[in-house]
Amino acid sequence: MRPVDIIYKKRNGEINTKEEIEFMINGYVNGQIPDYQVSAWLMAIYFNGMTKEERYHLTMVMRDSGDIIDLSGIKGIKIDKHSTGGVGDKTTLAVGPLVASAGLKVSKLSGRGLGHTGGTIDKLEAIPGFQTAISKDEFFKIANEVGMVVAGQTGNIAPADKKIYALRDVTATVDEISLISASIMSKKLAVGSDGIVLDVKTGSGAFMKNINDAIELAKSMVEIAELNNRKIVALVTNMDQPLGDNVGNSLEVLEAIETLKGKGPEDFTELCIELGANMLDLSGLYTYENAKKILKENIENGKALEVMRNWIKSQGGNEKVVDNPEEILPISKEIVEFRAEEDGFISHIDTEKVGIASMVLGAGRKKKEDEIDYSVGIKILKKLGVKVSKGDIIAKLYVSDKSNVKEALDLLKAAYKITSNPPKEEKMKLIYEKIVGGK
Amino acid sequence: MRPVDIIYKKRNGEINTKEEIEFMINGYVNGQIPDYQVSAWLMAIYFNGMTKEERYHLTMVMRDSGDIIDLSGIKGIKIDKHSTGGVGDKTTLAVGPLVASAGLKVSKLSGRGLGHTGGTIDKLEAIPGFQTAISKDEFFKIANEVGMVVAGQTGNIAPADKKIYALRDVTATVDEISLISASIMSKKLAVGSDGIVLDVKTGSGAFMKNINDAIELAKSMVEIAELNNRKIVALVTNMDQPLGDNVGNSLEVLEAIETLKGKGPEDFTELCIELGANMLDLSGLYTYENAKKILKENIENGKALEVMRNWIKSQGGNEKVVDNPEEILPISKEIVEFRAEEDGFISHIDTEKVGIASMVLGAGRKKKEDEIDYSVGIKILKKLGVKVSKGDIIAKLYVSDKSNVKEALDLLKAAYKITSNPPKEEKMKLIYEKIVGGK
Repeated sequence: MRPVDIIYKKRNGEINTKEEIEFMINGYVNGQIPDYQVSAWLMAIYFNGMTKEERYHLTMVMRDSGDIIDLSGIKGIKIDKHSTGGVGDKTTLAVGPLVASAGLKVSKLSGRGLGHTGGTIDKLEAIPGFQTAISKDEFFKIANEVGMVVAGQTGNIAPADKKIYALRDVTATVDEISLISASIMSKKLAVGSDGIVLDVKTGSGAFMKNINDAIELAKSMVEIAELNNRKIVALVTNMDQPLGDNVGNSLEVLEAIETLKGKGPEDFTELCIELGANMLDLSGLYTYENAKKILKENIENGKALEVMRNWIKSQGGNEKVVDNPEEILPISKEIVEFRAEEDGFISHIDTEKVGIASMVLGAGRKKKEDEIDYSVGIKILKKLGVKVSKGDIIAKLYVSDKSNVKEALDLLKAAYKITSNPPKEEKMKLIYEKIVGGK
Repeated sequence: MRPVDIIYKKRNGEINTKEEIEFMINGYVNGQIPDYQVSAWLMAIYFNGMTKEERYHLTMVMRDSGDIIDLSGIKGIKIDKHSTGGVGDKTTLAVGPLVASAGLKVSKLSGRGLGHTGGTIDKLEAIPGFQTAISKDEFFKIANEVGMVVAGQTGNIAPADKKIYALRDVTATVDEISLISASIMSKKLAVGSDGIVLDVKTGSGAFMKNINDAIELAKSMVEIAELNNRKIVALVTNMDQPLGDNVGNSLEVLEAIETLKGKGPEDFTELCIELGANMLDLSGLYTYENAKKILKENIENGKALEVMRNWIKSQGGNEKVVDNPEEILPISKEIVEFRAEEDGFISHIDTEKVGIASMVLGAGRKKKEDEIDYSVGIKILKKLGVKVSKGDIIAKLYVSDKSNVKEALDLLKAAYKITSNPPKEEKMKLIYEKIVGGK
């Protein structure tokens, strides 16, 4: 087998075999196939795409390049949830305890964030004392006893994906459905869950700007999971505005706690219940409708909050945070207001810019080495479709280093569009599509 | 400027600017842009093509990566001829002296061959004593005095092309019109001729198998030359069978000599006159029709042969070769016949296989390091459209190492197709198209 022949096949619109895909990926990881052949092949894939079988083979060889995480030490049904990422997406913090309160086991290996938003690990570390570097035994013990655990990803999961992603990043081959699906699914399928719920974000704050692209990506990932005989559901959800009201690490923990107390923002609460109901449905513990009822009850009766309390305590965090989050979380007292400059409807939010504004304040990392400031962030008071008058406060900036404020405010000004007509309903819809595997 | 943005533009179907193309090529040659970005860009070019302006910019930056050959030391009008290559293509050996006999100055820098056929330099070295490693002064002196000179290419012509070609070869990006045109024209435009006649071969023995692709390539090269204000004519000619009858180094020199004596094969003679007439037409010395007349006369009256004699002599070769080529050239006496296995018309010749058979006998190089055996080759007795009976001799193999004979015969068997119907006339046409620059 020669790499050049495999590139020719893909370039000419033919299908690469399982063996050819394995040869390319393993050869690249082993250093036997040079990056210039892999990048030409990736560009040919960009133009000619891959069949679902090719995507599956690509996913599996990437997955098998690293560790497989065996979760059999955790008793009960384990459903994984994964979001493709967006601004204000603190879903794991709330939905984990929520579904655990209904009997699921949620055990997540998470990363730190790079770019405009902190990762789940960063957000959790805003809670004083919270430890994410825990041993395998502790991880299993907490999962079994509390039903919810999150640890920093330390293993060597899908190293082929890391190497290929770095190459795609500099060769204009990032935005291709086959390659994106294989990248995400190689990491998801490396973890031995019983099922996966995907939250595929679309809109101005998501990687997938366009709804149809997001649906195509969701379908592709569902197909890959099906070929792996893994239960899966994918929701395509709105990222045309921040999820919930709070952006920034402590602020997002605060919002997750408020949500489990029944006082969270409407959109975020609804998404948590929707994702949670799909997780429970997939597990077979409840039907979708019953699951929704149970989850709402467990918010009202405080069961979900109790799971959160136990979880935080068992990972070394100050569990009083669930009672007095605003006291215990580091949240800046220095507030700068962002006000409307004209009358009208908020008709567009360039959500990525909101995320970048939060990063500029210190809530995210521009470079890997950057330290995160947990205390800063943005609280959004006015979202899409809201009518504002000139001078109304649209958002509050929680500030630490004042020298960043002007840049953040400029970003918000550029992000918000106020017009005389409200935006289309479609733009404010929370869930666009649900794709269920195995159908 | 970032390479990844230039790749994105080309990938998305946009046009790369002159500056972007220069940045990519110069950066690659300088080692500042890595091969994996260039190969992804080349693959994007494969899919999205280039405009004629982009092709021109690519050609010029590749040309300007190396030496420019100044021919102003040669008095008179200098017309270059270039063939894209094929089996039995010894045109330079005959057409050079022929047009020189009519007053043109032909000064060629040629390479050695790699693959099934020797290059012009290899063929000339079959003549005892012939020197191709000559000084610049000698080169100009011979051109001025004899009108014809060929030297081995020693300078650093278009090194960018060498580096890019090596990358294309292993990344499935060889067969793309923009890249092929720029590769050829970067080398042609590096030489300061007054005009260029291109012989673009098409058919089973050529790089361009398909006539329409060959016409497209010819047009592309003509457009590039036009943008360089260079006079140019391109002929698209038949390579569905070997050119002339002889394949192999000494055998091809022999055929060139015979042709200048008026005893050459009809197709080869006609092509030499056609190419020569276009060279003279381009030079302004003669009209096309008058040129044809003069060239035919100069074959009959021996003037062309005299130029060849003087040329060979002035480059140190044994000039008696023009009188007694079969005695002076090393030609093997060991002959193996390839005979028809059935009755019928020769309806197809896989001409590349004939070339490879000749290489297998020793006439070409598989690897750069291989030595060429000037004495071996193939003499074709029956070409396309000829009716044969079982047992008729189709070709004679001039053999040196008998261990190669079986492989060569098997290749010829696989190359020749004998059927009850003759091939279409189109397949035997010599010249398919003529594209004239500046119209």
